[in-house]
Amino acid sequence: MNDIIRRRRSEGRAVLNGWLSIPSGVTAEVMAHAGWDTLTIDLQHGLIDLQCAIQMLQAIGTDKTLPLARPAWNEPGQIMKLLDAGAMGIICPMVNTAEEARRLVAACRYAPLGERSFGPVRASLVHGPGYWASANETILVLAMIETRRALDNLDEILAVEGLDGIYVGPADLGLSLFGDPDSESEDERAIAAIAGVRQKAQAAGKIAALHNLTPDHARRMAGQGWDFVTCGSDMRTLIQGAAENIRRFRAQD
Amino acid sequence: MNDIIRRRRSEGRAVLNGWLSIPSGVTAEVMAHAGWDTLTIDLQHGLIDLQCAIQMLQAIGTDKTLPLARPAWNEPGQIMKLLDAGAMGIICPMVNTAEEARRLVAACRYAPLGERSFGPVRASLVHGPGYWASANETILVLAMIETRRALDNLDEILAVEGLDGIYVGPADLGLSLFGDPDSESEDERAIAAIAGVRQKAQAAGKIAALHNLTPDHARRMAGQGWDFVTCGSDMRTLIQGAAENIRRFRAQD
Amino acid sequence: MNDIIRRRRSEGRAVLNGWLSIPSGVTAEVMAHAGWDTLTIDLQHGLIDLQCAIQMLQAIGTDKTLPLARPAWNEPGQIMKLLDAGAMGIICPMVNTAEEARRLVAACRYAPLGERSFGPVRASLVHGPGYWASANETILVLAMIETRRALDNLDEILAVEGLDGIYVGPADLGLSLFGDPDSESEDERAIAAIAGVRQKAQAAGKIAALHNLTPDHARRMAGQGWDFVTCGSDMRTLIQGAAENIRRFRAQD
Amino acid sequence: MNDIIRRRRSEGRAVLNGWLSIPSGVTAEVMAHAGWDTLTIDLQHGLIDLQCAIQMLQAIGTDKTLPLARPAWNEPGQIMKLLDAGAMGIICPMVNTAEEARRLVAACRYAPLGERSFGPVRASLVHGPGYWASANETILVLAMIETRRALDNLDEILAVEGLDGIYVGPADLGLSLFGDPDSESEDERAIAAIAGVRQKAQAAGKIAALHNLTPDHARRMAGQGWDFVTCGSDMRTLIQGAAENIRRFRAQD
Amino acid sequence: MNDIIRRRRSEGRAVLNGWLSIPSGVTAEVMAHAGWDTLTIDLQHGLIDLQCAIQMLQAIGTDKTLPLARPAWNEPGQIMKLLDAGAMGIICPMVNTAEEARRLVAACRYAPLGERSFGPVRASLVHGPGYWASANETILVLAMIETRRALDNLDEILAVEGLDGIYVGPADLGLSLFGDPDSESEDERAIAAIAGVRQKAQAAGKIAALHNLTPDHARRMAGQGWDFVTCGSDMRTLIQGAAENIRRFRAQD
Amino acid sequence: MNDIIRRRRSEGRAVLNGWLSIPSGVTAEVMAHAGWDTLTIDLQHGLIDLQCAIQMLQAIGTDKTLPLARPAWNEPGQIMKLLDAGAMGIICPMVNTAEEARRLVAACRYAPLGERSFGPVRASLVHGPGYWASANETILVLAMIETRRALDNLDEILAVEGLDGIYVGPADLGLSLFGDPDSESEDERAIAAIAGVRQKAQAAGKIAALHNLTPDHARRMAGQGWDFVTCGSDMRTLIQGAAENIRRFRAQD
Repeated sequence: MNDIIRRRRSEGRAVLNGWLSIPSGVTAEVMAHAGWDTLTIDLQHGLIDLQCAIQMLQAIGTDKTLPLARPAWNEPGQIMKLLDAGAMGIICPMVNTAEEARRLVAACRYAPLGERSFGPVRASLVHGPGYWASANETILVLAMIETRRALDNLDEILAVEGLDGIYVGPADLGLSLFGDPDSESEDERAIAAIAGVRQKAQAAGKIAALHNLTPDHARRMAGQGWDFVTCGSDMRTLIQGAAENIRRFRAQD
Repeated sequence: MNDIIRRRRSEGRAVLNGWLSIPSGVTAEVMAHAGWDTLTIDLQHGLIDLQCAIQMLQAIGTDKTLPLARPAWNEPGQIMKLLDAGAMGIICPMVNTAEEARRLVAACRYAPLGERSFGPVRASLVHGPGYWASANETILVLAMIETRRALDNLDEILAVEGLDGIYVGPADLGLSLFGDPDSESEDERAIAAIAGVRQKAQAAGKIAALHNLTPDHARRMAGQGWDFVTCGSDMRTLIQGAAENIRRFRAQD
Repeated sequence: MNDIIRRRRSEGRAVLNGWLSIPSGVTAEVMAHAGWDTLTIDLQHGLIDLQCAIQMLQAIGTDKTLPLARPAWNEPGQIMKLLDAGAMGIICPMVNTAEEARRLVAACRYAPLGERSFGPVRASLVHGPGYWASANETILVLAMIETRRALDNLDEILAVEGLDGIYVGPADLGLSLFGDPDSESEDERAIAAIAGVRQKAQAAGKIAALHNLTPDHARRMAGQGWDFVTCGSDMRTLIQGAAENIRRFRAQD
Repeated sequence: MNDIIRRRRSEGRAVLNGWLSIPSGVTAEVMAHAGWDTLTIDLQHGLIDLQCAIQMLQAIGTDKTLPLARPAWNEPGQIMKLLDAGAMGIICPMVNTAEEARRLVAACRYAPLGERSFGPVRASLVHGPGYWASANETILVLAMIETRRALDNLDEILAVEGLDGIYVGPADLGLSLFGDPDSESEDERAIAAIAGVRQKAQAAGKIAALHNLTPDHARRMAGQGWDFVTCGSDMRTLIQGAAENIRRFRAQD
Repeated sequence: MNDIIRRRRSEGRAVLNGWLSIPSGVTAEVMAHAGWDTLTIDLQHGLIDLQCAIQMLQAIGTDKTLPLARPAWNEPGQIMKLLDAGAMGIICPMVNTAEEARRLVAACRYAPLGERSFGPVRASLVHGPGYWASANETILVLAMIETRRALDNLDEILAVEGLDGIYVGPADLGLSLFGDPDSESEDERAIAAIAGVRQKAQAAGKIAALHNLTPDHARRMAGQGWDFVTCGSDMRTLIQGAAENIRRFRAQD
Repeated sequence: MNDIIRRRRSEGRAVLNGWLSIPSGVTAEVMAHAGWDTLTIDLQHGLIDLQCAIQMLQAIGTDKTLPLARPAWNEPGQIMKLLDAGAMGIICPMVNTAEEARRLVAACRYAPLGERSFGPVRASLVHGPGYWASANETILVLAMIETRRALDNLDEILAVEGLDGIYVGPADLGLSLFGDPDSESEDERAIAAIAGVRQKAQAAGKIAALHNLTPDHARRMAGQGWDFVTCGSDMRTLIQGAAENIRRFRAQD
């Protein structure tokens, strides 16, 4: 577990995670200087590929924000590359079974805990020569819970050794459960399902993390006890900021 | 003069110009879909070079916003490349004399008005085979007025044939006049100097354009009669939006 | 099914699909302005990776051609990313069994039809806010039939719900059946095998699509009743055009 | 003078030069394998910047074609960079006076002939450690003659020491003389003006080079005695090849 | 088997393989001109993705070094793309079972030996039109042996038809066996395990290849009979060279 | 003057400057972690353009080394862009006259000292909001002395206000004076000429900086009193390191 995660836990506060969907070292650097605890480079739905992710990891490295990454899928090749490139944590999409969670852990942990291949080319350069020996402790591994199947298998997933916690994707979970991908849904069933995941995770001693769109919702969820909350993606911030700029100008045009 | 410029003039409204400092086709596309009349790719202070500008011109081309560009300097090589790549207008920095304004016009206009070299490789592809014959009419050419020297030479600059108008850079103008690069200064002297440029330009039948940071200021300036106003750069929007997201989250953290 | 597919069917004409193997937004834009009904970005044999494909999707977006993509393999991570980035259809290589076809459909369709993860970051921006609700209907999903095993399993593959049709790769099919990767082979057995796939597909109410090299062959195949035909890859066009230029020059050198 | 130039002269044949406007190492490599004597990377009207030109120089280096470059303008910084990156010749746009020709030569030749700064970082790597000592002999330097002013000053330009020859740009010359940028104009005046430049250049012992669009025109011009002829740009070849493919398909659609 | 492999074998000498971890055509070109028999682009632990690998393949193509690649994982999509892009051999990570070795061979060999899909877009361009017919013979296929499981299954792996040899990764093997990723360990057990793999491979008529860090160790291993040895990665060379430069300067600072 | 320059001066030690010719954020990051006082991105002879320089500035920003840049030429557009992008100093090539030195200073200093245009887009982000007010003091401005003309005008150049010092390029200077571009020449005349520049510069209260290839020579020059010495370019280090690796392997091959 990283220092920032440990520190926030000891403070009783949620980790605040920003989100990067734009493939650019410049936008990543802007976000890195904004003050998030952690920043996640999204290689799943974000428009970002591995080569650009490396530039973004460098850009984040110009400040003290902790860099995480979401791979496109639960594939060992890409997950290991992201870690070798310096990502200090993985948020893995679509972990629906304990077997898939074990596969994720295997990709993230060195033997004997897992099967991560050795070669931390950039990670050793920027995180120091002691990187590999402590990596199994410092790398954050979160499995996304975002389907009915994952809910059904949640106890087994939470029991997987080496998994630090779960990360709820409410859009996909809502789509899977009710056909509605609203990330901040007011639907009672959605609220209950999501809260249930948090309670089970924390009862199992795992980190409970949640994807949100807006800072207001993230704040409320942190208030309810989530350990780690995301909000404010770069893409959404720019789309909404540009719309607001034009709206204000046109107001009395 | 472009259709959008002509249309806004006939409506008695200012052209609303957005600003691109981030080197990315993705952020350019987000901005292009937001609804600006025109978008300017800034190759002077923006972190953008020619190769990336071409991607951004393509991204802007996915919507109907008119693409403009600010070159790094008043150099014919770069200005002609931007036009060949499809920019439909040039906002040229640091035009301090009539000679410099003539040099700018020469780079933007085909003979006999100027000396633009023939080879509109992408412009013909995307703006159609009739591009070159009408380019001297449709390409917008604005000279930036942003130093004491430019003020001193303003009448001569405004008299240069082929120049469509001037674009005031208040940060540099304030720095040159008073040592203060505040773009939206409340200093009476700055306000007077800037207003004076607009009046002279319009009296000479030229477009009066102004750089602003915020939509509120841009709206006020449009209300005072400016023909063309900029606000809301992508970089500034993202920096402020990220700060605001964190501020809102921390509010009751 | 996309409008262009539907329109061509109602006209009784084949969809004409161009092919992109060169990793460049500029060549993609040239092709987009040429007049193809659809253009496929080839991430399998083409020299194109995801990051460049996004630029190419933007370049295609400057005209009205419909953008499709062929992923490197039948992998959900890459397929979903291509759709999120704005591809409006998937031509998936090496679908040899009904299980593989179901896996393809699962990656392309939102619940309840499939398991596509929610996050259409660019697709919503450029195809509009209504994108996701209609995506299961508008996204074209074609499975490539290109091995003996696929022929053996063709009936089962055609029965998979959510699959719009099949796309025959004659080079691989010839290689698998006869050891000969000639795409436009005159071998009677190849001709019969390929025609047989078309008949079965159309009998099952599916789109029958065929890869060709030359426009002449594509035209003949359209005449035989194929619904969707490819020809004229950018790479092949440039190789042959350059050779022809030199040949003509040398003719009387 | 390069070997290929010398060899073609001794054979009494024109050098055949291809043209690169597309910013891509892949298209450059396709062209490099097609069989041109020389290939020119166009940084003026082409959509190519320095960083991409380096990739293209590498791509051309995979075959034996000689790489040349056209800079965006007659600027020493860019010209020297292109030479350091391995270009073996410069075709410089818009050389209108002997002073401009001397400036061009100064940028291309080491002391005492010129003022080229020393640092052939890639050129030494790929052309060998003897590169610098022979560079003043092997680098080809051609000044573009493409305006009325250049015609007026032609004798003085041709007298500049260190200049290998001139390169006529008929589009710009036609625009400057008659307002018509047709590169292969049948206008008698254009034909006479262009032929006059060739005669003067060859009388002065200089290489006479001509830009053409089509191989047929290039062949005719070679037949008239031009030493060096261009045709068949990558961009034009792809645009026309794609159009031809669609035309052939639609013929009996 | 490639000519260089065959030649070295006939000479009784080991193939000397260099290693590329830096994502850059320029560093690849520097390495290509240094004199390695082969150069491997590392897409597993190296900071290199497919798009950059294509540039690097072009850069290597400017000299006569044979280009190989290590994919991120044993995945057919990426392996086939690397071969289509011109890599003349594959060093595949983490092959632990005969089934995985067969999967690797299937991705690398055309039918009937394997299932490689047909479309050698760049390979045919640069290796000639005869490329595909001889590819099953010329493409080098090496399976990495780097875990206890692989040791346990070594005989079965070596028996897989179409596999040219094995490549020992001593860091991962040491980590798997003893928890120690020292690539050039003096531990007797490690030395014995590694030597055992070589003996078994050569007894089975396969190429025995070994990853090393330093040229001194590689030389010793070649002396012990390894057929193919790696040393001197670009990244390690630059890190150590820079440190040595500073150390020498500071020595008497 | 930057802190590192000031600190070294107070210690009586030379600033140790590394050199970047390779266009890559990864190699820049490797160099940034090696321990140089300053690192200069070479946009003149290096294979680096502006867009890549921005990535390299980010990479350098992951450690505490001070980033400098050498522009391709003494052009205000490019110099200002490099400063806006975060370079903390400029080493400008080919400053031969006081007029050219004044032009350099004008590009680097804000009014009233110079004419630098206001817009420190990245510099403010990474160097803090106080950047602009202190920039005239913290930005290092060095003029390269590398021709006979520069020697002739040295006193006038050294008298230019706002210039921090001079930087001798011994290769160009040797080429200009004696036709020999040996950077570390033993020629007495070269040694005397170079030492003379140092003495004049220091007598005028300016920084005396020198380009070297090897750390041994740099150490000797620091010992002779130079204030700032360069050695160990990334390109040279990799070329020599690779050659040394192969030499050691072949030694007893």
